[in-house]
Amino acid sequence: MEYGLAIKNNHLYFGGADTVELAKQYGTPLYVFDEQLIRNACRDYKNSIDRYYDGNGMVLYASKAFSCKEMYRLANEEGIGVDTVSGGEIYTALAAGFPAENIFFHGNNKTNDELELAIEKNIGHIVIDDFDEIDRINSIAEKLGKTVKVMLRIKPGIDAHTHEFIKTGQNDCKFGFTLETGEALEAAKKAIKAKNLNVTGFHCHIGSQIFSTEPFCLAASVMASFIARIANETGHVVSELNLGGGFGIRYTDEDEPLPYAEFMQKVSAQLKYSCKELSLPVPKVFIEPGRSIVGPAGITLYTVGSIKTIPNIRTYVSVDGGMSDNPRYALYGAKYDMLIANKAEQANDFVATVAGKCCESGDLIGENIKIATPETGDILAVLATGAYNYSMASNYNRIPRPAAIMVKNGESRVIIKRETFEDLISKDL
Amino acid sequence: MEYGLAIKNNHLYFGGADTVELAKQYGTPLYVFDEQLIRNACRDYKNSIDRYYDGNGMVLYASKAFSCKEMYRLANEEGIGVDTVSGGEIYTALAAGFPAENIFFHGNNKTNDELELAIEKNIGHIVIDDFDEIDRINSIAEKLGKTVKVMLRIKPGIDAHTHEFIKTGQNDCKFGFTLETGEALEAAKKAIKAKNLNVTGFHCHIGSQIFSTEPFCLAASVMASFIARIANETGHVVSELNLGGGFGIRYTDEDEPLPYAEFMQKVSAQLKYSCKELSLPVPKVFIEPGRSIVGPAGITLYTVGSIKTIPNIRTYVSVDGGMSDNPRYALYGAKYDMLIANKAEQANDFVATVAGKCCESGDLIGENIKIATPETGDILAVLATGAYNYSMASNYNRIPRPAAIMVKNGESRVIIKRETFEDLISKDL
Repeated sequence: MEYGLAIKNNHLYFGGADTVELAKQYGTPLYVFDEQLIRNACRDYKNSIDRYYDGNGMVLYASKAFSCKEMYRLANEEGIGVDTVSGGEIYTALAAGFPAENIFFHGNNKTNDELELAIEKNIGHIVIDDFDEIDRINSIAEKLGKTVKVMLRIKPGIDAHTHEFIKTGQNDCKFGFTLETGEALEAAKKAIKAKNLNVTGFHCHIGSQIFSTEPFCLAASVMASFIARIANETGHVVSELNLGGGFGIRYTDEDEPLPYAEFMQKVSAQLKYSCKELSLPVPKVFIEPGRSIVGPAGITLYTVGSIKTIPNIRTYVSVDGGMSDNPRYALYGAKYDMLIANKAEQANDFVATVAGKCCESGDLIGENIKIATPETGDILAVLATGAYNYSMASNYNRIPRPAAIMVKNGESRVIIKRETFEDLISKDL
Repeated sequence: MEYGLAIKNNHLYFGGADTVELAKQYGTPLYVFDEQLIRNACRDYKNSIDRYYDGNGMVLYASKAFSCKEMYRLANEEGIGVDTVSGGEIYTALAAGFPAENIFFHGNNKTNDELELAIEKNIGHIVIDDFDEIDRINSIAEKLGKTVKVMLRIKPGIDAHTHEFIKTGQNDCKFGFTLETGEALEAAKKAIKAKNLNVTGFHCHIGSQIFSTEPFCLAASVMASFIARIANETGHVVSELNLGGGFGIRYTDEDEPLPYAEFMQKVSAQLKYSCKELSLPVPKVFIEPGRSIVGPAGITLYTVGSIKTIPNIRTYVSVDGGMSDNPRYALYGAKYDMLIANKAEQANDFVATVAGKCCESGDLIGENIKIATPETGDILAVLATGAYNYSMASNYNRIPRPAAIMVKNGESRVIIKRETFEDLISKDL
């Protein structure tokens, strides 16, 4: 089984397939996913959660990172659950045949339509985000004659030292109930009393692209104390704890990804220790990796077009996509490694600013990128684009969204069809 | 004829329609456009260019601001041209019956497919952005037996003091040929010699959201000198000059929009003066307003969901859309005025952070926004969202893109249908 990145005969291979041939066959821009990398990531998480939580844990793929029918099929085949954040994601998961009971539904502002869909379809857990939602879920559940398994999202007050936009564990955040103000306690009491809700546990998510185990250990300890407090004050001992996601991945050499097994070992040790101290049963633990499952498992292939050298300033190398298929540079200044797929063995001694084709100066994919000397027609591969690229893609400049393909041991198949010009006007009257 | 914003019976009206009723009728989120405001903006530009350039000018609507079939129809009815930046925009314009000869085609990295479409369909002008394109357009034109009217995009080296991402006149920019290095001259000579190209003139675009006339006057003067130099060195006297767009609009009270007639008067005076000094005929002038035609003519209606007060920090008011339908706050920190449409006469004495429903902490529409005291179910109107909102919208979190409606004197009609969950999975295999 060949998987991951490899170089053969001066070409970049991914998942055993020659990316230069893939570009020819499917056209560019093209999202390419390596099925085995995805499966391996799912298995690594699953094996390590099974091991360190003694079979009493579950991995939930955070599907907002990359949501399409095929991803839900893969997650299901790997025996993991999914976390969804909208009616659209739930709809997609169910359309792919994903079992409703293994779906979690999150969101700071779920609409009644979305909640009805979730409850009607017996979605496994709904993660409650505010007081009003306690009432709304309870009343929809009552109307539909159901009891809904819910968790409450808690802000444990931990700052995970990451990009400002993706910090979510601290108190100034639109998600969840604040622990330190007593809001979380009040919410838990209210939810526990609600007739059609079954409060199975609590959830926290301390941020994204985190490279240290400590904040997760701290979160586990804080959450265990909260579970104990709820047990003491209400007699309701919850049996589940969702520690969220946020596991950092390597975009460039600057990033040092979390060793997931070590992460799981340390956090589980902390949680077991805390539970013992608090005389609590160790709850079933859920974790929600998204980026770390699909991010490194995806690359984007572009064709190089215009190459423009501005003397003493820089060289712009323009590709046939841009912020429309990857807005992360424009949004976060995100950094990516890149290489010319048809010059994979050549020295990366050319410094380029890689630009998109959108009519906007900020439409860049990266600055000061070292690649082989580019020529028009080259295939540029941008690495680790599997997460938050397709999912955030737009039709800005009325550019059709690229196709996505899955490769496995050298074989490829389309999983999302390329948009056409006809698609662009399909909603226009 | 009622148009623009008005307040009646505590409700916000737009284009003569009660926005609270529109929200009820069409659902939210909803993009609402006021047809008369769009037509008025087109007419203001057209009248003033006709007046100050003695009938020898043309307005081109920069359709990347908001591209859909109905916008091209309106532009055509108002007797103006359009500027397009992709095959998708050209396709949309032609699908709406827009006359090909009044279309300009821009872009820093036009693909061969796009150029073939443009040339095949007899698009009025192609604006050349780099050397390679001179050859490519010439050879496609030759193959198709056509002569193509082209302009060359020139970087006049002017910094228009605006947001870093939208400065495009200075030399460090992916667009166009640099004047000061001699690149522009070389490109012009090459294009003039190309057998199947007719170089009718030059184009420049000095930035976006500009609030001062001076940089435009400077650009006119620089471009006139360039035209004279080309005439002297090659004998080729071009008859057209495209001064681009970038005219600032009022998003909030901090912005002081350019008085367009005064702008036109001053820039035309400068250009005529320069041409006289240089013994040049005054060229036909094109301008490319986009944002200023549709920006203020559009608003977005949302329903307020979760309201979350974090003591001593802030109150998050969440709406049923967010960065998926308006990514400009996340991208640029863009500011908008907002009001509660069903409390339009109430004092704006509540300070809110308006958040979207996307599962991302950075999904905000605005911070420190003064609105009437919000309640769940209120309709929040975000103003001046007509430009770069629908056009940049995504399906992030698999949220369907909103519908867009046009209102005119109290009557409304759908111009872009709302996406459905079925649409979201229509390309998934």
